[in-house]
Amino acid sequence: MRILGIDPGIATVGFGVVDSERGRQSFVRCGVITTPANTPLSSRLDRIYADLGELIRTFSPDAAAVEELFFNTNITTGISVAEGRGVILLACFHAGVPIYEYTPLQVKQAVVGYGRAEKRQVIDMVRRILNLPSAPKPDDAADAVALALCHARSSTSMLRGQGGMGCSTI
Amino acid sequence: MRILGIDPGIATVGFGVVDSERGRQSFVRCGVITTPANTPLSSRLDRIYADLGELIRTFSPDAAAVEELFFNTNITTGISVAEGRGVILLACFHAGVPIYEYTPLQVKQAVVGYGRAEKRQVIDMVRRILNLPSAPKPDDAADAVALALCHARSSTSMLRGQGGMGCSTI
Repeated sequence: MRILGIDPGIATVGFGVVDSERGRQSFVRCGVITTPANTPLSSRLDRIYADLGELIRTFSPDAAAVEELFFNTNITTGISVAEGRGVILLACFHAGVPIYEYTPLQVKQAVVGYGRAEKRQVIDMVRRILNLPSAPKPDDAADAVALALCHARSSTSMLRGQGGMGCSTI
Repeated sequence: MRILGIDPGIATVGFGVVDSERGRQSFVRCGVITTPANTPLSSRLDRIYADLGELIRTFSPDAAAVEELFFNTNITTGISVAEGRGVILLACFHAGVPIYEYTPLQVKQAVVGYGRAEKRQVIDMVRRILNLPSAPKPDDAADAVALALCHARSSTSMLRGQGGMGCSTI
């Protein structure tokens, strides 16, 4: 199973592609889609939609794992991140890729083993699990790889009848 | 000039079509796009994208006036409204319709004459300006017509060199 992890945003969208077979995960590719700040919002949304569509055509993922949003702090930034996320979900839907959403807590639990892990611990565990020589960069790409790993490990445990992480199709 | 006003949402997206010629506005059509609550979010976003594309093909607007979002109260609902708004902006962009955004304050100022007007006053002024026998229904459709009127009146005043309402292309 090939999984595309997506860390939503408007200026930067992280993506991470991971293969998962028989409970083992291997790294395929990661990176970021970036949109220029000095262009209209609608044009930035189109860039995200088009680039994500291209990524899906290139890597043919079986599932997309997208971070669920919570806004407690910066609401204004949050609005444009959510607008970006809407377009991300649409691009996956149009490409026929099943979408699963995970909270940051679920990602930390699946990757590190407990929900209060620090960001650096998550990224370091991503590196170890995938036997990478160094941590994926930038952080948005690493977060996306962690989302893909979260789905891989949640799906595996669900298949094994252990209950899974509570992922949900959206 | 034909204007498509859009009141963003996820369960209900209001739309209102208004023609504006020589400083006078006339009503063309209004209504709502609705999406069923018990379906996946990605499918609801696709419904909004597809239905809005169909509306644009049917009415061929010269401009879209979309409400700008502010979240002070219900953040959780706000996230999905913003996700819907991202897809609305994308649909307009893909259809080549120039997008303008207005705050609720700007709409009230343009339609009623002052920014602290009540919702019912706005809807009643919409009815009067357009010489309608009754107020447009439901409220989401009326709000969308008010957005279209706001753009019509802002564009008119800008063309007349009076400064306009501070609309911005997004």
